[in-house]
Amino acid sequence: MVTAGDKPITYKDAGVDIDTKSRAMRAVAALARQTHGPQVLTGIGSFGSLFRPDFRGLAEPVLVSSTDGVGTKLLVARRLQRFDTVGADLVNHCVNDILVMGAEPLFFLDYIAAGRLTPELMTGLLTGFARACQEQGVALVGGETAEMPGLYRPEDFDLAGFIVGVVDRAHILAPERVRAGDELLGLHSSGLHTNGYSLAQRIFFDRERMEPTDPLPGTGTSVGEALLAVHRCYLSALRGLLRDPALHAMAHITGGGFTENVPRVLPEGLDAVIDRGAWEVPVLFREIARRGPVERDEMDRTFNMGIGMVLIVDAALAERVRGQLVAQGERPVRIGRIERGDRRVRYEGQGRS
Amino acid sequence: MVTAGDKPITYKDAGVDIDTKSRAMRAVAALARQTHGPQVLTGIGSFGSLFRPDFRGLAEPVLVSSTDGVGTKLLVARRLQRFDTVGADLVNHCVNDILVMGAEPLFFLDYIAAGRLTPELMTGLLTGFARACQEQGVALVGGETAEMPGLYRPEDFDLAGFIVGVVDRAHILAPERVRAGDELLGLHSSGLHTNGYSLAQRIFFDRERMEPTDPLPGTGTSVGEALLAVHRCYLSALRGLLRDPALHAMAHITGGGFTENVPRVLPEGLDAVIDRGAWEVPVLFREIARRGPVERDEMDRTFNMGIGMVLIVDAALAERVRGQLVAQGERPVRIGRIERGDRRVRYEGQGRS
Repeated sequence: MVTAGDKPITYKDAGVDIDTKSRAMRAVAALARQTHGPQVLTGIGSFGSLFRPDFRGLAEPVLVSSTDGVGTKLLVARRLQRFDTVGADLVNHCVNDILVMGAEPLFFLDYIAAGRLTPELMTGLLTGFARACQEQGVALVGGETAEMPGLYRPEDFDLAGFIVGVVDRAHILAPERVRAGDELLGLHSSGLHTNGYSLAQRIFFDRERMEPTDPLPGTGTSVGEALLAVHRCYLSALRGLLRDPALHAMAHITGGGFTENVPRVLPEGLDAVIDRGAWEVPVLFREIARRGPVERDEMDRTFNMGIGMVLIVDAALAERVRGQLVAQGERPVRIGRIERGDRRVRYEGQGRS
Repeated sequence: MVTAGDKPITYKDAGVDIDTKSRAMRAVAALARQTHGPQVLTGIGSFGSLFRPDFRGLAEPVLVSSTDGVGTKLLVARRLQRFDTVGADLVNHCVNDILVMGAEPLFFLDYIAAGRLTPELMTGLLTGFARACQEQGVALVGGETAEMPGLYRPEDFDLAGFIVGVVDRAHILAPERVRAGDELLGLHSSGLHTNGYSLAQRIFFDRERMEPTDPLPGTGTSVGEALLAVHRCYLSALRGLLRDPALHAMAHITGGGFTENVPRVLPEGLDAVIDRGAWEVPVLFREIARRGPVERDEMDRTFNMGIGMVLIVDAALAERVRGQLVAQGERPVRIGRIERGDRRVRYEGQGRS
């Protein structure tokens, strides 16, 4: 049917290079295999990924799944042309999201979409996924990589991660365990994690016209590096507490800050009261608030304010839990308590800054 | 810290409206609940989704997972401002991908990212997810919705889907089952499914300057409607064959066409030989080939050419399998056979057109 004289067009002419994608997929496979234990029955390349779970020792295994993205932190990665850290961010965010249900991770899949899949982008992201998966003991079993000129501008890309873990039904962490009088313990974050980047970039880069390489006063690092700090994973610090009856619930402080995330694990009739003076808000958050300016209430419903994970623990056992966390290298902070209320966060005290 | 005179800026000023997102999430929850059976332990809103699998009757349950997107078919949805069909596409694509491993689906999660999350976009997509999940008996257990001005243009969006299913280890469909002499049975597609849209749109809309509402000659429908036809799900047609020893393997014909997808289920030493004259290529594909022009080899490595699923079956039992498929309302076509070779697709015959 091809008419002589017309130059036939190919899928590559339309902007999609299947060969580049195939090469990248082989690189993925090698990195991913490093994360595979005996439970993984195939590598990448089949239509689906096979994982034979070992549920011995679990009375009633429950699968816990979650999906997430990295948000506009990707724009910081693009500015700095550094892609491994956001790969790790994605894995760690997903692990934390099922960890707060009491689950340990089993396997992870990634979705990468871009206007143009460069080797630098692919290698950076996949290195980040593989390294974080290896660190957390998660099998990187599969993924989808889509080059979509027309939907993404050449330099744009997006990521989504998908995780599945398991928890024994009796050990699911849930709001029903939370009681008035429980204490809130906060674990430090490593930076903005993966939330609030639209606002942070608007302030630093659009309003203040800073460059990513400009120093962030009082930090010894640049704005770009500070913004790109990898989202902490709390699995190793918390694994030993997952079946501990002293631990009633946990909230991962992501988009929406304390204000929206802590209520997700509160039952009817209880509030969380957070003392803003209990910890020192890191300079990165203070600079955002000062330069915006951004009111404290807005900060608390946007950023993690230096506390990336909140544990709700039995008050009588809180000191013992704190000791265990310190033994894990954490610096847990008593940031508040549970009181009668209506599933909201109430703030008291003045932030230290 | 807020200085008098400066107008404090909020996350909403930066383009992210958490309230709109919260409202949409409540709508999601209602739609998703309709897909929940007793295995789903929570609704949407927790950090992770809880699914208690019922593996009774399975000797050695293996979890099969996959992730996928809809690709630049999203641009057609955007042109037509119709979003439910691409939602269904995503679910059906994912179900098909694990179906070809022999798995039945358990649960699905979605990722939606957009420059601006309008109620029309959210409602359309979620209706599509929920309807397709309900049709296929999959629990829609969770998702992530990200509004990312700066990363996506206001009217742009992207989707990723994640699925988990289960297969008994003894019934995993894999290349090792395939033998020389096996027959290839093709099941009809409903259109382009979710692949080749960059090239198709380039030809129809950029080169030929057609409008989505322009009629596609010989179809009784418009180009836009033809391109937006929902990706077929083959679960109901094939469920009865999943444990049938006559069925050796299956290939879902997605990006890369026959040329790249059939070899994914071939063992070393075997080729698939496809007779291009065995079926009539639907007019939509013929129009793309003619107008491009696009050579047949390029068509076969880009589009499904009217065959969305290829079954590799025992030749001695192929007639019986065909009969079972006909009883399910299918019109299976013998499109070729397995021969000695090196894990490639070889084509013979001339396409009928």
